[in-house]
Amino acid sequence: MSRPRGRPPGGPGAERNREGILGAARELFAEKGFERTTMRSVATRAGVDAALIHHYFGTKRGLLLAALRPPEDLTTDVRRRLVEVRAGSGEVGVELVRAVVTLWDEHPEVRHRMIALIRVALVDDDVAESFRTLVVGMVSGMLGDLIRPDRSEERIALAVSQTMGLAMSRFIIALPPIAEASADELASTVGVTVHRYLTGDL
Amino acid sequence: MSRPRGRPPGGPGAERNREGILGAARELFAEKGFERTTMRSVATRAGVDAALIHHYFGTKRGLLLAALRPPEDLTTDVRRRLVEVRAGSGEVGVELVRAVVTLWDEHPEVRHRMIALIRVALVDDDVAESFRTLVVGMVSGMLGDLIRPDRSEERIALAVSQTMGLAMSRFIIALPPIAEASADELASTVGVTVHRYLTGDL
Repeated sequence: MSRPRGRPPGGPGAERNREGILGAARELFAEKGFERTTMRSVATRAGVDAALIHHYFGTKRGLLLAALRPPEDLTTDVRRRLVEVRAGSGEVGVELVRAVVTLWDEHPEVRHRMIALIRVALVDDDVAESFRTLVVGMVSGMLGDLIRPDRSEERIALAVSQTMGLAMSRFIIALPPIAEASADELASTVGVTVHRYLTGDL
Repeated sequence: MSRPRGRPPGGPGAERNREGILGAARELFAEKGFERTTMRSVATRAGVDAALIHHYFGTKRGLLLAALRPPEDLTTDVRRRLVEVRAGSGEVGVELVRAVVTLWDEHPEVRHRMIALIRVALVDDDVAESFRTLVVGMVSGMLGDLIRPDRSEERIALAVSQTMGLAMSRFIIALPPIAEASADELASTVGVTVHRYLTGDL
C-alpha cells in the first residue's frame, strides 16, 4: 500500500476517506481514462477536499497506482503459498502462474484493476514508467528470495513479460486456447516457462 | 495483403491509390485512434472517393488491419529464414525471436505498426477480435509446418502470448533488462521458450 506522506489524519474516518478516494478514482479512470481525470473531479465524487488526496497519494500518478494495485492481503496470500511450495520442493513458477490465474478468475475486481493498469500503461508513456516500478516491486515482493540470485533483475523482467502476455491473451485479446484453458493447464504450459525464467538456466 | 473485393480497378494508378489510402489511414489512426477516424476523413486525406476505400478494404476494421499489417515481403523473408534454420536442424523458435526482434529494431515502420496494433486492440474489443485473426493468421503463415502438429492452435496462442509480452516489455513498458537486451540475448532467453511452445512437450 502507498504510504501517506507525513502524518495521516487519524481517527476512524481516515481509512474510510482513503477507500472512498480510491473507489472514486477507479470509477473515473475507467470512465474517462488517465488524462481526462482530474484530482478535483476525484475529490468531488469522493466528497472530500482535494488537499486530502494530495496528502494521501501525492500526484495523480500516485493515485492511479494506489487505485489499481491489487489488495495487499491477496498478494500476501500468494507469497505465503509460494513459500510453502518451495518448502515442499514444488516448482515456484508453476505455482505462481496457477495462483495468479486463479486470483484473476476468482476476483473480478483484481482482474479489472490489472486490465485497467495494462490499458492505461500502454497509451501513456508517463504511466508506463510508474507501471514498471509498481509491477517489478510487486513481483519482487511476492517472490523475494525464491528467485535465483544471478541475473535476478532480468529474471523478473522475463517473468513479467510472459505474465503480461498471458493476461492480454486470456482477457483482452481472448485467444481461445488461452482464454478457455484452466488454471491448471496454464500452470503446466506457461508455468514451466515462468519457472525457468525465475530459477533455471538462461 | 488484403484482397480487394471483386475486381480491382486496373491501371497503373490502382496500386498507388491503395498505398495512398493505407498511408492516410495510418496517419489518422495514429492521430485520432480507431473510433474517431472516419472512412470519409481517410478518403479526403488520400484524395480519393470513399467508395474506393470500401471497394478495397470493406469495413473500417478491414482498413485498420490492412494498414497495420507488416509488409508482406518482410514476413516472407522471416519464413524463408526459418525454413533454412530447420533444414540445418537449428531451433526454429530461437531463430523466430531473433528474426522478429531484428525486424522491429531495424524497421521502425514495422515496429510502429505493431505497437499501434497492440494499443488499438487493447482498448477496442471489436478490434481485438480482428487482431486475433490477423496475428494468428500471420504466425501460421510464417511458421506453417514448422510447428509440431499436436495441439498446434494452442502452440500458436502460447507463442503469440510470449511474443506480445516481449514487444510490450521492450517497446511500451520498456523494462530495462528486456528493452536493452540484444536480439541474440533475447533469442537465448525468450527464444528457448517460444521454441518449446512451438515444437516441445507441453
